Amino acid sequence: MKMINKNEIQEQIVCAVDAAKRTNPLVGSVTNSVTINFVANAQLAVGGSAAMVYLDDEGEFLAGVGGAFYINIGTILPLYEQSLPHIARKLHEFGKPWVLDPVAVGIGTLRSSILTQFKAYKPSIIRGNASEIIALAGLWGLDKATKSNVRGVDSTDAVTSAKASAIALAKWTGGAVAVSGATDLVTDGSVVVFSHGGSHYFEKITGAGCSLGGVAAIYAAVATPFVAALCASAICNLAGQRAEQKAAGPGSFQSEFLDELYKATPEDVANNHFEIEEI
Amino acid sequence: MKMINKNEIQEQIVCAVDAAKRTNPLVGSVTNSVTINFVANAQLAVGGSAAMVYLDDEGEFLAGVGGAFYINIGTILPLYEQSLPHIARKLHEFGKPWVLDPVAVGIGTLRSSILTQFKAYKPSIIRGNASEIIALAGLWGLDKATKSNVRGVDSTDAVTSAKASAIALAKWTGGAVAVSGATDLVTDGSVVVFSHGGSHYFEKITGAGCSLGGVAAIYAAVATPFVAALCASAICNLAGQRAEQKAAGPGSFQSEFLDELYKATPEDVANNHFEIEEI
Amino acid sequence: MKMINKNEIQEQIVCAVDAAKRTNPLVGSVTNSVTINFVANAQLAVGGSAAMVYLDDEGEFLAGVGGAFYINIGTILPLYEQSLPHIARKLHEFGKPWVLDPVAVGIGTLRSSILTQFKAYKPSIIRGNASEIIALAGLWGLDKATKSNVRGVDSTDAVTSAKASAIALAKWTGGAVAVSGATDLVTDGSVVVFSHGGSHYFEKITGAGCSLGGVAAIYAAVATPFVAALCASAICNLAGQRAEQKAAGPGSFQSEFLDELYKATPEDVANNHFEIEEI
Repeated sequence: MKMINKNEIQEQIVCAVDAAKRTNPLVGSVTNSVTINFVANAQLAVGGSAAMVYLDDEGEFLAGVGGAFYINIGTILPLYEQSLPHIARKLHEFGKPWVLDPVAVGIGTLRSSILTQFKAYKPSIIRGNASEIIALAGLWGLDKATKSNVRGVDSTDAVTSAKASAIALAKWTGGAVAVSGATDLVTDGSVVVFSHGGSHYFEKITGAGCSLGGVAAIYAAVATPFVAALCASAICNLAGQRAEQKAAGPGSFQSEFLDELYKATPEDVANNHFEIEEI
Repeated sequence: MKMINKNEIQEQIVCAVDAAKRTNPLVGSVTNSVTINFVANAQLAVGGSAAMVYLDDEGEFLAGVGGAFYINIGTILPLYEQSLPHIARKLHEFGKPWVLDPVAVGIGTLRSSILTQFKAYKPSIIRGNASEIIALAGLWGLDKATKSNVRGVDSTDAVTSAKASAIALAKWTGGAVAVSGATDLVTDGSVVVFSHGGSHYFEKITGAGCSLGGVAAIYAAVATPFVAALCASAICNLAGQRAEQKAAGPGSFQSEFLDELYKATPEDVANNHFEIEEI
Repeated sequence: MKMINKNEIQEQIVCAVDAAKRTNPLVGSVTNSVTINFVANAQLAVGGSAAMVYLDDEGEFLAGVGGAFYINIGTILPLYEQSLPHIARKLHEFGKPWVLDPVAVGIGTLRSSILTQFKAYKPSIIRGNASEIIALAGLWGLDKATKSNVRGVDSTDAVTSAKASAIALAKWTGGAVAVSGATDLVTDGSVVVFSHGGSHYFEKITGAGCSLGGVAAIYAAVATPFVAALCASAICNLAGQRAEQKAAGPGSFQSEFLDELYKATPEDVANNHFEIEEI
């Protein structure tokens, strides 16, 4: 088992956050219509370039030229039946990192069908709340012991209850899994990191989780899945905490959050509180 | 004819606003792509949980597990031909309260066809501007005397000119109708309430009406249609008035509006100025 | 060759900006789902009325009753294959001004097919970044000498490099072309105007270009294409410059930008720095 050194991780975070700001990585997305604007703005705030599409050939094009890709199935459309498996397959073929946000897994037959097909295309990062991570691990037959409790798009399970599911998913994909909650859990299957911070407003706005997923895709273009997921959790937790201090409510919080994503330095992100747990 | 007591209504408003904050009711929506984010954020700000979908089986699922539903036909898509009548029928079968926002009624054949089918499924709350309410009552053959003047998505008629149409619609559905304007009119067919406040910025942003409709659906999960519609009008009028005092323009107004929706106490909402008129 | 007088242009700008505020022109749009809310809010902020649609008959209706139309192909959907050429043809038949935003031209076969068909329907204003303008002129066979460098939705070419393409496009349509960048270039094929101002945040938010296009459509309802394009560039550059001074980052910049669009007087817009270059 590899030994994990906190300083080493922090150095990798500094490199990734800095690289995103310097190199403006292009990331294509197919994402839900509720938070599509917020996701794009979050991706731009951390230094990336965002391009949202719906069609298979456009997704394939961006899979080819972009540094990474983000797929969020929040608002499933009929055309996704064709386009999403096609894009995911191309990403896998091209060896491009991609982030899956399995929003509301368990609702609807098309959603389940698409998510089932994604198993073979091994998303580099899976980002969800505890209920979604547990449900996806169940759907993929990787962790049938844990029971999830999806209700609409909200999690009704605690982050730590998804630990076994997250590890099982990460071992399957060979990438990383990020479980969002009061404290975020990030794992590559051999190490679990807990990232602290964030804000109670995350539950009072739509798009906190989606923006984390979208930002993770930007970092995935310039870092390993594990470091990218950790960078995304850390910068969102940091920006959330700082934004909460300035916000008067969930409306102003959104503006402040984007401002803080933009202002966070690589060192700020690396120094955001996290703990390492060897498995 | 039942006597309406202002204190009694205020007590019901306090209960509903408080219940939404405490119980976090889940409300599914099919809504337009222009203001989908603003609607979701408004629903979260008043304490609800928002889940937006497009597909028939996903809408049916949320109709079953949610406390209420919101249908806004602002940006009609071809798939709505299948999904919206199906979801509305299921809501009716399940006896679940639902809010209809008949945006731009009169434009396009599919929009008219869907709205015509909705007549049988009796939305618990109909929320629109004066022109939309008059046009819908006309489309449903409930008030052919009043003439509407829809122009795009804007109302060109005064709120009071829609009074007869609103009453006719409420009598048909057995629910409530809310007419948005300088002063909002809310009726259950036997009583008309005028809710005051709001802001001139409501006409300078997109989504003031949609967020009112979305918020009404949250309250419909915890109160009668009449009280829910009144709560929604009152909290939006209150938040609009407060936000205007802090805003420097329509951009900052939107943030302030969400902040004030979040901060309004049950008592604040109940005390927002309204008048009762027995019919 | 006509002589262009700066004062005369400024008077026309004052008239157009004032007319938009006074007459609240209705403009229909088919636009991308990423920035659809921001576009609508920008259109309302300058005094217009916004109505977004997807279907052919709804677009045709708005083409008929509206003062102008805005088509932005950012996020292509399959249904656009039918609706967009139909709406553009109707706009051409009706003699209604319309603005084309050829976002990400070159990606995908449907996008190229639709853009190719648009050539015959001569958009009154074409608004894009340098790469998009060069690529569109190439696609339409109007300027094969200049080579573009589209990468996703970002421009990798300088504004002045698109000058020949912009002039060629304007000569073909008989309208105007606006090239967005550090300094905007606006031409009617015989004169080139450079509009100054703006903000470095324009590249850190999504929708700076789209809102410019949407606002140009509002002004196109009350002015010539050339004056409308110039008004839109000037007010966006002015609002961007003012907003940057108040913003703490890209999140607050968006609110401030809408506020400043709203607050800008006709004289402010006319006095925003621009230079004229006879061709």
